[in-house]
Amino acid sequence: MRKLRCGLLGATGIAGQQFVDALAAHPLFDLVALAASPQRAGQTYREALSRGGGSAGWCLPRSPDARIAKMRLAAPDRFDIEALDLVFSAVETDVARILEPLYAEALPVVSTASAFRGEADVPLLIPPINASHLPLVRKQAQRGWRGFILPIPNCTTTGLAMTLAPLEEAFGLKAVMVTSLQAASGAGRSPGVPALDLIDNVVPYIPNEEEKVERETQKILGKLGRPADLRISATCTRVPVLDGHTEVVAVSLKKKASEGDVAACFRAWRGDEGARKLPSSPPQWIVVLEDPYRPQPRLDRDTHGGMATTVGRLRTDVVLPNGFKYVLVSHNTRFGAAQGALLVAELLVAQRFIGERDRSPR
Amino acid sequence: MRKLRCGLLGATGIAGQQFVDALAAHPLFDLVALAASPQRAGQTYREALSRGGGSAGWCLPRSPDARIAKMRLAAPDRFDIEALDLVFSAVETDVARILEPLYAEALPVVSTASAFRGEADVPLLIPPINASHLPLVRKQAQRGWRGFILPIPNCTTTGLAMTLAPLEEAFGLKAVMVTSLQAASGAGRSPGVPALDLIDNVVPYIPNEEEKVERETQKILGKLGRPADLRISATCTRVPVLDGHTEVVAVSLKKKASEGDVAACFRAWRGDEGARKLPSSPPQWIVVLEDPYRPQPRLDRDTHGGMATTVGRLRTDVVLPNGFKYVLVSHNTRFGAAQGALLVAELLVAQRFIGERDRSPR
Amino acid sequence: MRKLRCGLLGATGIAGQQFVDALAAHPLFDLVALAASPQRAGQTYREALSRGGGSAGWCLPRSPDARIAKMRLAAPDRFDIEALDLVFSAVETDVARILEPLYAEALPVVSTASAFRGEADVPLLIPPINASHLPLVRKQAQRGWRGFILPIPNCTTTGLAMTLAPLEEAFGLKAVMVTSLQAASGAGRSPGVPALDLIDNVVPYIPNEEEKVERETQKILGKLGRPADLRISATCTRVPVLDGHTEVVAVSLKKKASEGDVAACFRAWRGDEGARKLPSSPPQWIVVLEDPYRPQPRLDRDTHGGMATTVGRLRTDVVLPNGFKYVLVSHNTRFGAAQGALLVAELLVAQRFIGERDRSPR
Amino acid sequence: MRKLRCGLLGATGIAGQQFVDALAAHPLFDLVALAASPQRAGQTYREALSRGGGSAGWCLPRSPDARIAKMRLAAPDRFDIEALDLVFSAVETDVARILEPLYAEALPVVSTASAFRGEADVPLLIPPINASHLPLVRKQAQRGWRGFILPIPNCTTTGLAMTLAPLEEAFGLKAVMVTSLQAASGAGRSPGVPALDLIDNVVPYIPNEEEKVERETQKILGKLGRPADLRISATCTRVPVLDGHTEVVAVSLKKKASEGDVAACFRAWRGDEGARKLPSSPPQWIVVLEDPYRPQPRLDRDTHGGMATTVGRLRTDVVLPNGFKYVLVSHNTRFGAAQGALLVAELLVAQRFIGERDRSPR
Repeated sequence: MRKLRCGLLGATGIAGQQFVDALAAHPLFDLVALAASPQRAGQTYREALSRGGGSAGWCLPRSPDARIAKMRLAAPDRFDIEALDLVFSAVETDVARILEPLYAEALPVVSTASAFRGEADVPLLIPPINASHLPLVRKQAQRGWRGFILPIPNCTTTGLAMTLAPLEEAFGLKAVMVTSLQAASGAGRSPGVPALDLIDNVVPYIPNEEEKVERETQKILGKLGRPADLRISATCTRVPVLDGHTEVVAVSLKKKASEGDVAACFRAWRGDEGARKLPSSPPQWIVVLEDPYRPQPRLDRDTHGGMATTVGRLRTDVVLPNGFKYVLVSHNTRFGAAQGALLVAELLVAQRFIGERDRSPR
Repeated sequence: MRKLRCGLLGATGIAGQQFVDALAAHPLFDLVALAASPQRAGQTYREALSRGGGSAGWCLPRSPDARIAKMRLAAPDRFDIEALDLVFSAVETDVARILEPLYAEALPVVSTASAFRGEADVPLLIPPINASHLPLVRKQAQRGWRGFILPIPNCTTTGLAMTLAPLEEAFGLKAVMVTSLQAASGAGRSPGVPALDLIDNVVPYIPNEEEKVERETQKILGKLGRPADLRISATCTRVPVLDGHTEVVAVSLKKKASEGDVAACFRAWRGDEGARKLPSSPPQWIVVLEDPYRPQPRLDRDTHGGMATTVGRLRTDVVLPNGFKYVLVSHNTRFGAAQGALLVAELLVAQRFIGERDRSPR
Repeated sequence: MRKLRCGLLGATGIAGQQFVDALAAHPLFDLVALAASPQRAGQTYREALSRGGGSAGWCLPRSPDARIAKMRLAAPDRFDIEALDLVFSAVETDVARILEPLYAEALPVVSTASAFRGEADVPLLIPPINASHLPLVRKQAQRGWRGFILPIPNCTTTGLAMTLAPLEEAFGLKAVMVTSLQAASGAGRSPGVPALDLIDNVVPYIPNEEEKVERETQKILGKLGRPADLRISATCTRVPVLDGHTEVVAVSLKKKASEGDVAACFRAWRGDEGARKLPSSPPQWIVVLEDPYRPQPRLDRDTHGGMATTVGRLRTDVVLPNGFKYVLVSHNTRFGAAQGALLVAELLVAQRFIGERDRSPR
Repeated sequence: MRKLRCGLLGATGIAGQQFVDALAAHPLFDLVALAASPQRAGQTYREALSRGGGSAGWCLPRSPDARIAKMRLAAPDRFDIEALDLVFSAVETDVARILEPLYAEALPVVSTASAFRGEADVPLLIPPINASHLPLVRKQAQRGWRGFILPIPNCTTTGLAMTLAPLEEAFGLKAVMVTSLQAASGAGRSPGVPALDLIDNVVPYIPNEEEKVERETQKILGKLGRPADLRISATCTRVPVLDGHTEVVAVSLKKKASEGDVAACFRAWRGDEGARKLPSSPPQWIVVLEDPYRPQPRLDRDTHGGMATTVGRLRTDVVLPNGFKYVLVSHNTRFGAAQGALLVAELLVAQRFIGERDRSPR
C-alpha cells in the first residue's frame, strides 16, 4: 500500500513542528503539503522558520529533513484536496473553527485543537481507551461532509484518562481529584508562557484548562454520546518544566479494592485490542514505577517514546471513600499532542476510516 | 528592658543563616553566642562561612553584620548557659535529639527541628492559631528541666494550618486534601536538593513530609493533648522554586457555607489576640487575592515580610461534601522557619514564659 | 518645592510597571498621567492590567497604589502637556520614534527606549559617569523643540560602563572584551523570552545587543560628540535568570597597573560629584566583593537597592596586554531601566534642566 | 574477537551511571565488575542505587539492564585483575590517586578523574586531536606497571580543544580567551551543585576549573612532552542548565584568515585518521550551525549522540589581533565524560594497546 498523503495546518508553530518531527519516516503517512499563516504562503518551510519577522524558529533538536525544509507553504485555506488523503491540524482553536470544517467537507481532519471536542457528533479519541467511539464520526455526514473532524483531547486530559480507564473498567469510578503540574511546552512557544512567569515560580491557573480536563475525561470514559457519570475536580498549575505533565491524582472507586489490586490493574491493562499494534503504540500503555521518587517528568516522560503513561506513589487515601492516590507523568507534546494525533490517524487507517479514496472512486 | 541574650545552634546551615539574618536589629533579642559542628569550634563565623573545607558559604543577599561575623563559634554543647536567656536551634533532627535536651535543662529552646514535635508535653506552636497551647511546656518540668523545648511545625504544615484554622473555627473541618509544590530551600543547602534533580523537573516525593503534614496539622488544630479529629491526605512534591511553598488544598466543611462565606472567613480572621501585636506579626495573617493567576510563590511569598499566608483561586469543589478548593503560598524560610521561630519566642516573652531569670532568682 | 508632574508612556509593559513601582513615594516626582496602547485609552490602570484580552497583568510583587490603579489611561499621543513637567517613556523603539518627538516639543522626555541613543545631539547619560554630557540636550532646540529627549543606555551597557569608567579615568582603556549572561527580564514580558527557550538552556544571541553595547559604551565614555577611542568586543547571551545581568569582562589598560591598583581604583571611585547626592544614588556606585563565588545575580543584584554595580573575581589576564579580568553583576531593571531613568531625571532637576516651567512663564 | 572484560570504579556516582549507560550493548566492551565505596561492597547494584541510606539513586532516563542491576559490588580495591582486560574509573580525584595505580600495575585504566592528568608520562587524549600521544603511556612501564593510567580531559577542556585543534593546524594559535557557561551535571549529583545555587542564578566560579582548562588545553594541543605555546585565559561559570557546556571563545590566529576560511576549516576537519571509524566516533566531529541563535545547549548537546561539538556565531573580533569569535556547545557528560572515555578505550583497542592479554602471555 502506498503511503497516505497528508497536509499539515499550523506547520510553523511548536505543535506543527512536532507533527513534522513525528512524521519523519512514518510508515503510513507522507507529509506532502504544509500551511501556516496566510502571510507566509509561498515561503519555503525553511524560510518561514528563520527567525526575525515574527517567526519563532525551529525549536526541536532534530532538524526537519531537506525535502520538508524546501517545501513551499500553501495558504491555509488552499490545500489541493485532490492531492491529499488526510489533514493534520495543529492550529489554534479560533483558526481551527474556520479551517477544519473547510477540509472536513472532503477529508478526515485529525486535530490537536479544542474547537470541536465538545460537539455531539465528534468523538474524542484515545485509541487504547475508546477506539469504539470512532464510528461516531459517521454522523458528521449529516453536516454534509464526506470527511470528518477528529480531535484528540487536551494533553492534561490524556494522562489522566489513561490511568482512569483501567480503574473504571475494573472497579468503577465515583470521583476523581487531580492537581496538575504542567510543563511549559503545553502552552506553545510564540508567545506561550513568558520565561518571566516560570523562573523561580509556579503559576496556579491555566485559563479553561480545568473545565477541559473535567469535561473531556467524562466524554472519553463515557459511552458513545453519554459522558461518564463521574465527578472530577481539577486544579491545573504551570511549573518550570519543559515537557511532561505531572499529575497528582486521588480516586474514589465503586468496588472495594486494595493497593495491590490497583497496581495489578494498572500493570495488566492492555487497552482496546484495536490499538495494540499500531505503529505508534508502545509495548505498554501504563508503566508502574516502584521507586517512590518516580515518576519525574524529566526522567520518565520519554518512556516508550513518550507514548506510555508512567505511574508511581500508589497508596490508599484516607479522605475519599475507597480512595487511592497516585502520581502520573505523561508526555504532553508526544502522546498528548502530535504523536497522539498520529496514533489516532493510524487507528483510522487500521479501521478503514481513511484511505478508501485510493481504492475506489467517489 | 534589656534585650534577651540568645544562643544559636546550627548557625552555619541555611536555617541558621536565616536566624542570623532575622535577628539582625531585633527589638527583643540579642544574638550573643553561635555554634555549628564541633570541628568549627574556635573559628570566627566569617571563617566558618568562607567556602572550601566543606563549608557552603553564606547564601543570603544581606551579609551578617560585622559584630556577628567576628564572633567565635562555640562547640555545640558548650554554650555558657549563665550567659544566655534563650537558645534558638536550627540543627538537623538527629543532632537536635541530643543537643536540645542539654539546654532545655536550664533554658527555653525554640527550635525548627522536628525531633520533639510529637511528644505529649511539647506543644507545636503557631501563635495566631494555638497560643493557648503554650502552658503545656510547663509539663516538661517533669523531665527535670527548668527550661523547655518548643519546636515550630514543618514549613509545609504552617501554611496549611494557617488557612485551616479560620475554617475550623467558623465551619468545622471534616477532611482535607493537599498537594504541595515545595520550594528547594526547604531542604537546606548542604547538600539539600541537588540542582540536577530540579532543572526541568519535579520530584514527587519528600521523605516523611506527608506524615509530618498530616500529624502536625492535627496536633496544631486540636485541643491541648488531643489532636483534631480531621482526616488529612497530603502529597508533597518538590518544584524548581527557590522560596515559597505553594499548596493546592481541598477541604470538606462540617457546616454549610458558600464561597463568599469562606472568603469572608479568611478575610475576617485575626487569630489569637495574644499574637496580634508581636514584633514579627504582620498586619494580616491571611491575604486573599482576587487575581486568578495568584498566589504565585515568587510574587507573593514576601507579603508582609514573608509572615502572611496568601490565598487565591477559592472555589467550590464537586468531589468533597460541602467542599471548597483554594491555593495558598506561604514563605517556607520566613514564617515557616527562622522568622516563625522568632514569633514563637516573642510570644514566650509576651506571655512571660521567658526572661524571668532577669528579674527573679529561680 | 512642589513635586514635578510626570506622565508615563508604555505604562502597562514590564518596563512601565517598573516606573510605576519606582515612582511610588518618590520625593521629587508625582505620577499624574499614564498611557499605554491606543486601544486601552479610557480604561483604568487596574482594568488594563487585569489579564485576558491580551494584557499580561501586573507582574511585580508590590501592587500599584490605589490612586494609580484607578487612574484612567490616556491615548499615548494625548497627554495634556500643560499639566506635565516631564514625560517618562517606557515604550518600544518603534513607538518611541513616533511618540517621543511629539512630547519633546514641549517637555523633557526621559526614556528607556533605544530610538534616539545614537543621535548626535542626544547625550546618553549615566549620571555618575558623564553628567557633564547633559548640556548637549540644549542642541535639540535646533529641532525646534522646547523640550528634549534624553535616553538611558541599554541595560547591558550600564553595568559595563560603570566598571569601565573608573579604569578609563585612572589608567586609560585600550580594549574591552565582554561576555554577558543576561537575565530574562531585559526582554520584557509580552512576549519577551518564551519559557521554552530558557528552561535548561542558554540562548547565545540577542539581536542588535552586541552592537548597542559596543557603540553606547564608546559614546558614554567619550567626550561630548566624540566617542571614546576604545575597541570593544561583546558577546551577549541569555541565561535562565530573572533579574540581574552578569558580565565577564577583560580589559587592556593603557597605564601599567597591578591587581591591587585596579581593585583600589574600583573601591575609591565616587563618580561625578553632581550625581552623588541624588535621591536614587546609592552610598557606593561600585561594590567590590572578595568571595570568589560572587557576584551572583540572585544574591547581588539588589545591592543598594539595585543601584550599585558589584564586581568580583578580579585577576590579571594573560592574553590582553596589561590585561585584567573581572565579573560584574548589575540590576538590569533597576539601575539598567526605570530606576536608572529616575536617576537621570533627578540629575535634570538638580542641574535645573527641568522644572523651570513652574517658576517662569513661557 | 570476544568482548573485552571491563571493571568500573565509582559505579554508583553520576559519572559511573553514565559509564553503565554508555556500555549497555557496546560492541567491544563487556561490563563484568562494579565497585563503589567500600561500605557498599556486597550489595547488588540495584540495592546500592535504591535511595535512602545516603544513596542518590539512579538518575538517568534509561534504567540499567537486569544483568547489571543484579551484579554485586566489589570493594573498590578488590577487583579480580585476572578476570579483567580493562578498568574504567569514574571516581573522585582523591580516590583516583589511590585506586588507579593499584590497577595500573596490571591493567589499562581509562579515567575521568583529574588525578594524573598533569604527569609527564601520562598523555591526555582526545582521539581525533592527539591519538599520536598514545605511545607515551609506554613510559609508565618505568613506574613498574604492566598497565597504565590514561585520563580523559576535563569536560570544559574537551569542547574547547576540539574547536582549537583545527585552527591550530590550519592557522596556528597565538591566544585564546574563553568564558564557559557550564551545566550542572559537570559537578556530579551527590552533593554536586545545590539547587539553591542554580535557581534564578549564575555562579561565576568553579574551583580549579580555569587552571585545568588552561593547562590541559596546552598539553592536548602540544607535542608529546611539550605543551603548546599558547596563551589561554579562561573564566568558568555555572548556569542553570542540565547538560551541555556552552563556551564563548575568542582566538588570535597566527596566519591571516577570513571568517569564511575559519568556517571552512571547521567544516573540513576530519581529525586523526585513527579516530575516524571507532564505534563511538560521530560522522562529523564539528558541526557548524548557521542560525545565529545556535548552538543552544538543550537543542544541540545531543548532536551525533553527544559526540559532536557544535559551533556557531562565528565572526571576526576587533580586540584580538587576527581575531575570531564563536560559541560552542559540547556535551559534558557524553563526549566530555563516560562516552569520551569509551572513545579512548576504543582507540586503545584499535591501536592494540589493550587486549593483548587475550592473545599472548605477558
